[in-house]
Amino acid sequence: MSKTIDHVAENLNQLINEKIHSLESPVERAMALIGDKYSLLIIHALYQFEKQRFVELETQISGISPRTLSARLKHLERYGLISRHQFPTIPPRVEYALTDKGQGLANTLTELTAWANQWYPYKP
Amino acid sequence: MSKTIDHVAENLNQLINEKIHSLESPVERAMALIGDKYSLLIIHALYQFEKQRFVELETQISGISPRTLSARLKHLERYGLISRHQFPTIPPRVEYALTDKGQGLANTLTELTAWANQWYPYKP
Repeated sequence: MSKTIDHVAENLNQLINEKIHSLESPVERAMALIGDKYSLLIIHALYQFEKQRFVELETQISGISPRTLSARLKHLERYGLISRHQFPTIPPRVEYALTDKGQGLANTLTELTAWANQWYPYKP
Repeated sequence: MSKTIDHVAENLNQLINEKIHSLESPVERAMALIGDKYSLLIIHALYQFEKQRFVELETQISGISPRTLSARLKHLERYGLISRHQFPTIPPRVEYALTDKGQGLANTLTELTAWANQWYPYKP
């Protein structure tokens, strides 16, 4: 069952990947990859803290379920925005980090951050 | 039925609005508002073309259903990112435009656009 889902997801991603380049609007191309609630939060967390383990990301991103986090990480890895490094320890340690492509995306968040701070300041 | 849905949506938005300021991460604050596939595309279309009618936006944003477009426009209007102006013509003409807050958000898309063009160039 899980294999079937992975297979369907893989085919879907292939189709999406081919389709991305054919979208005329650059914002549309970006949204095809990161147009969901959590992708930019994951990118931002990895930008701030460099390497992060699954549980660390779970703590950084409030309200995300392990299932969703896992799905988003797979998605971002598949599209080359993050890398996954597994250490041969017992128990195995897995760390996620930004690739160059992901780093470039993280750099675009500076202005978004300034915008949010201007219009929606943090009030604890 | 529709009224009930509007009422529920209104309450939900109220809760979200109060919650936004309490989020520590500015990216999380931004995502609470525009963390979906279409909001930034709508903002970008209004940035490029200034005033837009519903049918014009529908043409700009490939793949969006009228139902989703309508819901996103209501959402963005409710949060003060876009304005809706109805002209007393027959049939009535409705135009959407960016507010200052929305304009500020649109300005942050310049870098995202450059990133998308670098890593995912347009191939028709």
